[in-house]
Amino acid sequence: MEAKSLTTSDRLVAGKTAFEEITGLPASAFLDGLADLAPNFGRFVMEWEFADVYGSSSLDLKTRETIMIAACAALGATAAPILKLRIGSALRAGVSREEIIDICVQVGIAAGLPAALAAIQTAGSVFASVENPS
Amino acid sequence: MEAKSLTTSDRLVAGKTAFEEITGLPASAFLDGLADLAPNFGRFVMEWEFADVYGSSSLDLKTRETIMIAACAALGATAAPILKLRIGSALRAGVSREEIIDICVQVGIAAGLPAALAAIQTAGSVFASVENPS
Amino acid sequence: MEAKSLTTSDRLVAGKTAFEEITGLPASAFLDGLADLAPNFGRFVMEWEFADVYGSSSLDLKTRETIMIAACAALGATAAPILKLRIGSALRAGVSREEIIDICVQVGIAAGLPAALAAIQTAGSVFASVENPS
Amino acid sequence: MEAKSLTTSDRLVAGKTAFEEITGLPASAFLDGLADLAPNFGRFVMEWEFADVYGSSSLDLKTRETIMIAACAALGATAAPILKLRIGSALRAGVSREEIIDICVQVGIAAGLPAALAAIQTAGSVFASVENPS
Amino acid sequence: MEAKSLTTSDRLVAGKTAFEEITGLPASAFLDGLADLAPNFGRFVMEWEFADVYGSSSLDLKTRETIMIAACAALGATAAPILKLRIGSALRAGVSREEIIDICVQVGIAAGLPAALAAIQTAGSVFASVENPS
Amino acid sequence: MEAKSLTTSDRLVAGKTAFEEITGLPASAFLDGLADLAPNFGRFVMEWEFADVYGSSSLDLKTRETIMIAACAALGATAAPILKLRIGSALRAGVSREEIIDICVQVGIAAGLPAALAAIQTAGSVFASVENPS
Repeated sequence: MEAKSLTTSDRLVAGKTAFEEITGLPASAFLDGLADLAPNFGRFVMEWEFADVYGSSSLDLKTRETIMIAACAALGATAAPILKLRIGSALRAGVSREEIIDICVQVGIAAGLPAALAAIQTAGSVFASVENPS
Repeated sequence: MEAKSLTTSDRLVAGKTAFEEITGLPASAFLDGLADLAPNFGRFVMEWEFADVYGSSSLDLKTRETIMIAACAALGATAAPILKLRIGSALRAGVSREEIIDICVQVGIAAGLPAALAAIQTAGSVFASVENPS
Repeated sequence: MEAKSLTTSDRLVAGKTAFEEITGLPASAFLDGLADLAPNFGRFVMEWEFADVYGSSSLDLKTRETIMIAACAALGATAAPILKLRIGSALRAGVSREEIIDICVQVGIAAGLPAALAAIQTAGSVFASVENPS
Repeated sequence: MEAKSLTTSDRLVAGKTAFEEITGLPASAFLDGLADLAPNFGRFVMEWEFADVYGSSSLDLKTRETIMIAACAALGATAAPILKLRIGSALRAGVSREEIIDICVQVGIAAGLPAALAAIQTAGSVFASVENPS
Repeated sequence: MEAKSLTTSDRLVAGKTAFEEITGLPASAFLDGLADLAPNFGRFVMEWEFADVYGSSSLDLKTRETIMIAACAALGATAAPILKLRIGSALRAGVSREEIIDICVQVGIAAGLPAALAAIQTAGSVFASVENPS
Repeated sequence: MEAKSLTTSDRLVAGKTAFEEITGLPASAFLDGLADLAPNFGRFVMEWEFADVYGSSSLDLKTRETIMIAACAALGATAAPILKLRIGSALRAGVSREEIIDICVQVGIAAGLPAALAAIQTAGSVFASVENPS
């Protein structure tokens, strides 16, 4: 089906499917967590980020996760919870631990050493939780 | 030669070589531009960024340029001159124009639409200058 | 028509209409400026920002323009071109010059005096261009 | 009394009164918390922010709280404690929960989805604490 | 006279005197430039920044200018016009050119190399204008 | 020995010595904490920040710690852990508590009151831990 005739319902379905493939987490948990507070925002994440932007990207999944780690690491503390989520996604996409750390180190050139150190420590916490899921 | 026994002179040479391969620009022009004002800073860029960080990275060149675009686009106006330089480097490394634009668009998810639009416009100016070098 | 059955074409039309009402500028000029470089990004601005987000907002237009000025002023130089656009939109929505300046001054509490001064100067340039359109 | 002949004592009194009306919290608690560490800073908040800036603003209270939420949400993690305080003030000023969430969502256009999500979650914690005061 | 009984007029006079000593520029030029647009903001800069904050600081002038350069360099493009002003002030306060550059380089550790490079180039433009006043 | 003939091993030794003098903490604890995760990053902190940048600075230690507090306070939540570390270093270098608070207050002019308040509170926690080491 051509993009232009996609309905918002179609986009929500496509976004939820992409979210689950990328993060390995149920989309319903994310949406339910926002259902009482900000249901539109939950939908926008699925429809716009995961369906529209990712659905139209020329970049492969590994590259897209690399970009997300670089951008979130550069943005620092505000984006730290999303960085955590997307480091998990990057591991799923086949980005190695060493590569994830090297992304964080390289971001230190552009964003400073405190931003790099914080991202490295976030990566360390994700690596540890993968080994010892709670 | 092992990394630990590299001298600062060795690192400067290695960094200048990497800078020229990556950016396609003479390292001496960058260093001469800073020679009177901040000679140490020019050396640090070559020795630390281009020799130490890039020399120890597990990431291939295309991925490293992708990271640099994502981080600089997320940092916005402060990093715009470096974004411009590195979009040129990304083209040299084989990142296509479409991929560069898709990096900028994706950064908009994390950093906001004004940051994405500014990065897209910087990319447009680099693409134009490649076609019509002054 | 219910939101869920809106197609992407419907959203593009709705977003263009809202963009023109809010900014007083032709949507086609914005889209054409991005047509060769980043056509998807132009569409996302219309479909997501102007149709989805604004279309579902409980806030009146004057309040929405106030928010946009506050957020862009806080983000500083990266968002300055969008701040300029939206100060024009705020004037159209009935936010007075004095109110726009007071928004910028108040943002100085949260974001610092340099950000406030830059926003005030951007407002001044918009006010001048309204009086003396080029 | 004319603004120019106000003494610093007058401004402190006016600022404390405004702080208490806006936040619903005792100004003395805020000032006492800073008394040993940074007494001047506590006074500047009352005298400059709450007396000078708010006292000279042409904007009504609801609009001023809307601006503060937008600016703090855009600034992200650094301003999160102040965002929390001012979401409480916004509720007191008659900004509805739905409106507060829509401010946060709209800020996501300018500052990115991670900043919007963090602000929404801060709002959720304030709403919960209003229902179940500890 | 004790601080508490200072009137706003007293503070404006004190702030203008401090502004002129620190920057070497006429306070009236700064205030006149904002007189039509944002007269309160001009007064707040004099009364709050230059009278209240600097008037109560335990730090000597050279240290205060060093702090202003470090903070503005870290904030990047948004604060670049103020960085320019305060590099001139730092030179007047006896901070040497070499020291100003070393402040900018050190900020690069915390804020990244693009922020440091931008600050160094701003410093270079101030040094050049001191030598060749227009 | 001339800087140019320093090896990376020499720089690591020099950096560790400087780190221990400045922070009063064992460099091995910092490096061991990163040994499994990001050993290169730990080395870069010692070699580049503490040997290269500090080793070539014309600024005395007290001034360098002042700069680090100003830059980290301006960068906000992302740099808060490093701000904490460097406030301890500043106390060791002879910067008084009152001076540290006045640096944080002054940064509020440039970066906003929320950034200043957060830095003041970080300083308060360092002062308390110095009095009551755990």
